[in-house]
Amino acid sequence: MERIKVAINGYGVIGKRVADAVKLQDDMELMGVCDVVTDWRIKMAVRKGYPVYGFDLSFSARMKEASIPVIGNLDEMLHAADIVIDCTPKKIAAQNIPKYRLMGKKFIVHGGEKHETTGHSFGAENNYETAIGRESTRVVSCNTTSIVRTLTALKNAGLLVKARGTLLRRATDPWESHLSGIMNTLVPEKDIPSHQGPDAQTIDPSLDVITVAIKVPETLSHLHYWNVQLTRQASKEEVLRAFGNSTRIALINYSDGLPANNTLKELMLEMGRPYGDMYEVAVWKDMLKVQGDELFYAYIVDNQAIVIPETIDAIRALTGIETEAEKSILKTNESLGIKQSFY
Amino acid sequence: MERIKVAINGYGVIGKRVADAVKLQDDMELMGVCDVVTDWRIKMAVRKGYPVYGFDLSFSARMKEASIPVIGNLDEMLHAADIVIDCTPKKIAAQNIPKYRLMGKKFIVHGGEKHETTGHSFGAENNYETAIGRESTRVVSCNTTSIVRTLTALKNAGLLVKARGTLLRRATDPWESHLSGIMNTLVPEKDIPSHQGPDAQTIDPSLDVITVAIKVPETLSHLHYWNVQLTRQASKEEVLRAFGNSTRIALINYSDGLPANNTLKELMLEMGRPYGDMYEVAVWKDMLKVQGDELFYAYIVDNQAIVIPETIDAIRALTGIETEAEKSILKTNESLGIKQSFY
Repeated sequence: MERIKVAINGYGVIGKRVADAVKLQDDMELMGVCDVVTDWRIKMAVRKGYPVYGFDLSFSARMKEASIPVIGNLDEMLHAADIVIDCTPKKIAAQNIPKYRLMGKKFIVHGGEKHETTGHSFGAENNYETAIGRESTRVVSCNTTSIVRTLTALKNAGLLVKARGTLLRRATDPWESHLSGIMNTLVPEKDIPSHQGPDAQTIDPSLDVITVAIKVPETLSHLHYWNVQLTRQASKEEVLRAFGNSTRIALINYSDGLPANNTLKELMLEMGRPYGDMYEVAVWKDMLKVQGDELFYAYIVDNQAIVIPETIDAIRALTGIETEAEKSILKTNESLGIKQSFY
Repeated sequence: MERIKVAINGYGVIGKRVADAVKLQDDMELMGVCDVVTDWRIKMAVRKGYPVYGFDLSFSARMKEASIPVIGNLDEMLHAADIVIDCTPKKIAAQNIPKYRLMGKKFIVHGGEKHETTGHSFGAENNYETAIGRESTRVVSCNTTSIVRTLTALKNAGLLVKARGTLLRRATDPWESHLSGIMNTLVPEKDIPSHQGPDAQTIDPSLDVITVAIKVPETLSHLHYWNVQLTRQASKEEVLRAFGNSTRIALINYSDGLPANNTLKELMLEMGRPYGDMYEVAVWKDMLKVQGDELFYAYIVDNQAIVIPETIDAIRALTGIETEAEKSILKTNESLGIKQSFY
């Protein structure tokens, strides 16, 4: 079997995780990673044996000066690849797209870009099929991924009328919390609804979902609270079964020593997950409450990790190497150790 | 006019604020404050000229050793008073009640105690009348006070069907944040619904209100997000007018440089409020959104301050010195500088 040749443009929080995940896939080959930095971040890619490219001649020269064994520039990396995963910062990807198109390469952008940049937004359990053979897609943001994943599970069980969510967003990524962030305050998003609700509708326009969001002074993960109008009175067991339909939702118990974001992070680290990453949406089972035809629940989203499996599936969909969503999802889950129960 | 003789048992975060507020009322006399500590906290009461009492002989002795001019014990303070405001820590007040009853004194407890301890829970704008002449009442917690205040405004405008709230609770009080608190994590309350919804129903059983709550790593104030089912489609202006019916709800604008809890705290300090206290519920006007028959809004609650005006009104109600809620509320508002608009 021919392996898909994958290039990664941008070796930051997402890029390095996508690179590691690509390396774990037996149907993919990592052709290289491209960046603009010259410090420890890209040196770790060298140490891992990943082919390193500079964004252009100027950046490549600087990287060489810093003793980084640069193989070439972005153009050369793209030349060698079937598909490029753009993991550059928000809004930068849109500027790279003309180059990808010119070189006839398939590409994936992430949630920082607008839906219109690709015309397709991806959710592995939602619309894998419509991405097959496309030139490009957008893997939606961490929060949106979690929303679509959980609400689709409820929708597929015939339980969903509408959903209203409150998102507590971590202040900044841990590795750059020395640069910016908030301390001892809370920062609501200016607009109600916040953008995540409409963003979920780019994957499934039928979802009646409205979100509000607040930045909170912590860096570990997001926390979501949801209030869902069900189609009818339902039992807690029915709801849990519905969530069980997604292989990427894990149920946890508050009473199992998991009463807060930090405890779940420690569990991931103890499980040996790279960076302590959690690819699953972790829903508190014992906290979840059904009252009449209303459902209330809370879950944690690891904003650095949740989009990684989706990105791997998106690679298979765009390149058509796997035409069945279920098979790709299963393969990705196995490679990353994704579970519905952690212990 | 005979002035009401008020004693305060417990000179902590709430007690010292109640003492200051009582001093500002021309129909009340502060008979004394009682505590068990011997450090700067009670020495500040001495400096303010408040009569200081020790909880019992043993505590009085210790305070005298620390050169605190103790006037006597709790019993003696109670003897001189018409009413005692119990501001001792959660669950302690319940133990003091038999003494208050034995001495035939009216008393007020705070939100840390159960509704059953007094059989009456107080909201100045809700049930002032039913408290008139009673032996005792309970001034509900900061969060519950804010909930009852805002939802009553919507209910009185004929707009409220049901309300679902997400409460971001500050980790701890600022003055004791060296003792405990949380850092870089989020701690959901174990149970959904959280206790604040049922607590609001102790004041108005007709409220269909469900809350969830999360402890967040900041100490300034609480932040609430609400999703309200309205009786009908309504305009944003109608909702704002409804909130205007409470004299203790202030409207603020995100776009006026108030995008977060810390900015509002700074405004209160600049206004010269004692401790930077905010007695009002501060609702973001520009963030507030009406979509069809659903209302979404967010507000800030100063958990150290919001119950102070309610406590002053409760004193007037129990003692019957003022039998009209509106007059007491107006008097309290004027004395504390409570406003519907800050700038």
